[in-house]
Amino acid sequence: MLGIGDDAALLSLPEGQQLVVTTDTLIENVHFPEEIPPEFIGYKALAVNLSDLAAMGAQPRWVTLALSLPEADEMWLEGFSRGFLGLADEYGVSLVGGDTTRGPLSITVQAMGLVPEGQALLRSGALPGDLIYVSGSIGDAGLALSALKAEAQLSAEAYQSLVMRLHKPTPRMALGIALRGLATSCIDVSDGLLADLNHVLEASAVGADIVLQQIPLSPLVRQWAEHHADFVVPATWGDDFELVFTVPAASQQILEQVASRLDVPLSMIGKISAETGLRLFTPAGEAVTVAQTGYDHFGRM
Amino acid sequence: MLGIGDDAALLSLPEGQQLVVTTDTLIENVHFPEEIPPEFIGYKALAVNLSDLAAMGAQPRWVTLALSLPEADEMWLEGFSRGFLGLADEYGVSLVGGDTTRGPLSITVQAMGLVPEGQALLRSGALPGDLIYVSGSIGDAGLALSALKAEAQLSAEAYQSLVMRLHKPTPRMALGIALRGLATSCIDVSDGLLADLNHVLEASAVGADIVLQQIPLSPLVRQWAEHHADFVVPATWGDDFELVFTVPAASQQILEQVASRLDVPLSMIGKISAETGLRLFTPAGEAVTVAQTGYDHFGRM
Repeated sequence: MLGIGDDAALLSLPEGQQLVVTTDTLIENVHFPEEIPPEFIGYKALAVNLSDLAAMGAQPRWVTLALSLPEADEMWLEGFSRGFLGLADEYGVSLVGGDTTRGPLSITVQAMGLVPEGQALLRSGALPGDLIYVSGSIGDAGLALSALKAEAQLSAEAYQSLVMRLHKPTPRMALGIALRGLATSCIDVSDGLLADLNHVLEASAVGADIVLQQIPLSPLVRQWAEHHADFVVPATWGDDFELVFTVPAASQQILEQVASRLDVPLSMIGKISAETGLRLFTPAGEAVTVAQTGYDHFGRM
Repeated sequence: MLGIGDDAALLSLPEGQQLVVTTDTLIENVHFPEEIPPEFIGYKALAVNLSDLAAMGAQPRWVTLALSLPEADEMWLEGFSRGFLGLADEYGVSLVGGDTTRGPLSITVQAMGLVPEGQALLRSGALPGDLIYVSGSIGDAGLALSALKAEAQLSAEAYQSLVMRLHKPTPRMALGIALRGLATSCIDVSDGLLADLNHVLEASAVGADIVLQQIPLSPLVRQWAEHHADFVVPATWGDDFELVFTVPAASQQILEQVASRLDVPLSMIGKISAETGLRLFTPAGEAVTVAQTGYDHFGRM
């Protein structure tokens, strides 16, 4: 109805739809280093919010942007806008409100989407016997970040092939929407696969048995895992923005059709059990003990 | 439906209602000095957003909060929450989402409200002949801010009586809702009465004739204006969060009933004209020339 220009935006929702709202902040030197091109910052500030909508099965519609900048820098703003608005256009999202202030560089985005009444994907619906799936591959963004922080050595070529997964993650919008009525629970991988899966387990009051080697890794991450004989660490790296979700075993075939229609690789990594807790196994069925499964793995905030 | 805890909040809108969305950021040392108690910061971060909803005639319903803090400070958070949640409770607003990050102190709030289809108050509906009204009084917050910055001298007693208008402004929610179907345009006074009225004039493609002395001032601000022989400056101070709105001359009586029912003082300060521009007059009808009518009056950002 009305976008930027009045005291507030005025939005009309179609009947029978619910509103899905999410907000995320990116702060310089916390979420991204100073040297990141503004186009990537603009892109990612929106992408992480769209990913939250994808995890709810929502169709993205509107977004507001609160931008705090140390000084009005035309070049920076131009790059930022290209990244932000380019992604918004790609998904038909309208910028309906904003606030620009002078201050330390920080970006808060609120994204709003629609989902038919009662069809939102929640964290709380996983049931014992459900199969656990992950889209795409896990660990690319984390390995790129480790290389950026000089915690991992990568060839320039390898780094180049991974770094766009960190800077320009693809929100899994089409998959989220396709999972309506199919997935019993869903979350996006932002803190790390195991930590995010744990959120689902807690919300659903269930547990899970995971076969570590079934977690989908790209060739470079697999190489890293084999070299370090550690398949746990990649599962604790965040920022992949893939979807982790559960489906009843009976829906496996429909899910395979969805994966093929959308051309999104889906990997089954384990099963929900009534016994709470997250248990990791080798392909041979041996238990793997892990001290930490969360975002704190590398002492990040 | 679902508040904090999933990837996003899930909200159901009643039929026949439109969603009104606004966002505002407060940053330390830009919008408030370091020494402000956290309770006032929490209160004001929400109040300025509720005021935007009031200016649209919306009933506030939901809010998200993105908070960036240099360190987890329990005492500070406790005070902030008391201010923020206390005001939210007062207006029946639910906190449905949030993001807390480590970084320079900054607060971004997005407030969402409801308005019956087609009844939102916009800036763009003022018509020639409409009367221009202001709620409450103007200038208290600005005079307190000037005193705080040592640009104005005030007795401690006088300062105390004004400073709560700066720190804990009252969003005019009930008035905004009562003006549905009555006001032809509306805006809240954040940048300064004249600057904000100018936004209405531009959006409505009309002009206005204002009698400066009819602008409602509290006794202390009136005293300041008389002492400095300047009735323009108080009309350029911001942060009052009163409503400025227009009504057809025929609605004057209904409006007086609204004012008396809500116990909100309303002052008629002038009239909309077809000739664009904002013209100021003395009570004797002499034109007053003003170089600047905006937020920049004191060289603030």
